[in-house]
Amino acid sequence: MSDFQHPEYQACIEACYACAAACDNCSTACLQEDNVKMMARCIALDMDCAALCRMAAACMARGSEFAAQVCRLCAAVCTACADECGKHQMDHCQACAQACRRCADACLAMDSAA
Amino acid sequence: MSDFQHPEYQACIEACYACAAACDNCSTACLQEDNVKMMARCIALDMDCAALCRMAAACMARGSEFAAQVCRLCAAVCTACADECGKHQMDHCQACAQACRRCADACLAMDSAA
Amino acid sequence: MSDFQHPEYQACIEACYACAAACDNCSTACLQEDNVKMMARCIALDMDCAALCRMAAACMARGSEFAAQVCRLCAAVCTACADECGKHQMDHCQACAQACRRCADACLAMDSAA
Amino acid sequence: MSDFQHPEYQACIEACYACAAACDNCSTACLQEDNVKMMARCIALDMDCAALCRMAAACMARGSEFAAQVCRLCAAVCTACADECGKHQMDHCQACAQACRRCADACLAMDSAA
Repeated sequence: MSDFQHPEYQACIEACYACAAACDNCSTACLQEDNVKMMARCIALDMDCAALCRMAAACMARGSEFAAQVCRLCAAVCTACADECGKHQMDHCQACAQACRRCADACLAMDSAA
Repeated sequence: MSDFQHPEYQACIEACYACAAACDNCSTACLQEDNVKMMARCIALDMDCAALCRMAAACMARGSEFAAQVCRLCAAVCTACADECGKHQMDHCQACAQACRRCADACLAMDSAA
Repeated sequence: MSDFQHPEYQACIEACYACAAACDNCSTACLQEDNVKMMARCIALDMDCAALCRMAAACMARGSEFAAQVCRLCAAVCTACADECGKHQMDHCQACAQACRRCADACLAMDSAA
Repeated sequence: MSDFQHPEYQACIEACYACAAACDNCSTACLQEDNVKMMARCIALDMDCAALCRMAAACMARGSEFAAQVCRLCAAVCTACADECGKHQMDHCQACAQACRRCADACLAMDSAA
């Protein structure tokens, strides 16, 4: 991606898309758990987080003038999703929590640098 | 991503998100070219392709029953975008054409395996 | 919307966005049902359908050369979602099934006219 | 939409989707103008605004706990897009500016009420 307009965003874009994939995976894996009801907030936050990560990545890749603000909000959603997923012991939740924390860190760093 | 429900989709998900980032980057890089008019179809296809790649990646990560059909359409859009971008010599267009072709190949392979 | 490039798409765009809203509403209303497990496929299809409806509407509003193909796939997803939602008696599912059928009809008509 | 979980969001959801359609239409109408270069920022903001409006509408329809924060950011992007589009006399830009202002007002009202 050396010919990207904003090579400094590359790591954050990758963290966002990795987080979106982890959230998407977690949302439907949760739907297959025996106790789906216990996972309801996890599923809802997975949907929010995946959507926001995709939008943040798109804004960065387009060099949007709102990229930093979108990343700031993305970090807040990622943190909420990580906190919720982190409460559950299933692999898909733990993997999602980890991806969310990495993405929150990357988005906060991006927002600070902007 | 070893705890993904569909580890067999992982390479295609990554190709889709790399293509989305290349298309997003290309769309706004094209807007800064001297001859923007010449880039109009490229920009329009970049928008279509980025959106479809993001949706294909999301469908795969969620294990959607429509993942294969979305990937088939994604391959068609990627191919059209690659053909258009490939006509232009700028680095962002050439990089985008390459990412689109890789994504088209990954989506077709995914559709065949489904 | 009289100054739209494609006023002939207007009704289908509106049907797509109404369907996306009904699917989004249904997905989280399902998560609050006592028997969430029974609603798992409904929730998964709601996510697919909302995403595809939003993309179809965007492609039409941009006058995308892939608008008809996206609408054709959107009609297939809407029909599957309507069939699943139609099995459940809750108001949110019945309202969603109705919005999905209207959207499927509009997308098929749009694809035939293209 | 009387069986929506959040009927109080309905007007804002509709304003968001109307704005997304106006921005999408404006983005590709701008690409067909003789002086595309002059429209570059308009096109870029149209892309941001359409994406954010779609996400705000989805968050509201799902009753997301982040709906108010997403609407607040959406209002900021809509205002920037309205200001830029408002500078251009073409019908598609004037219609887009008007849809953006209505959406910004609806999103601010939604955020205040939350």
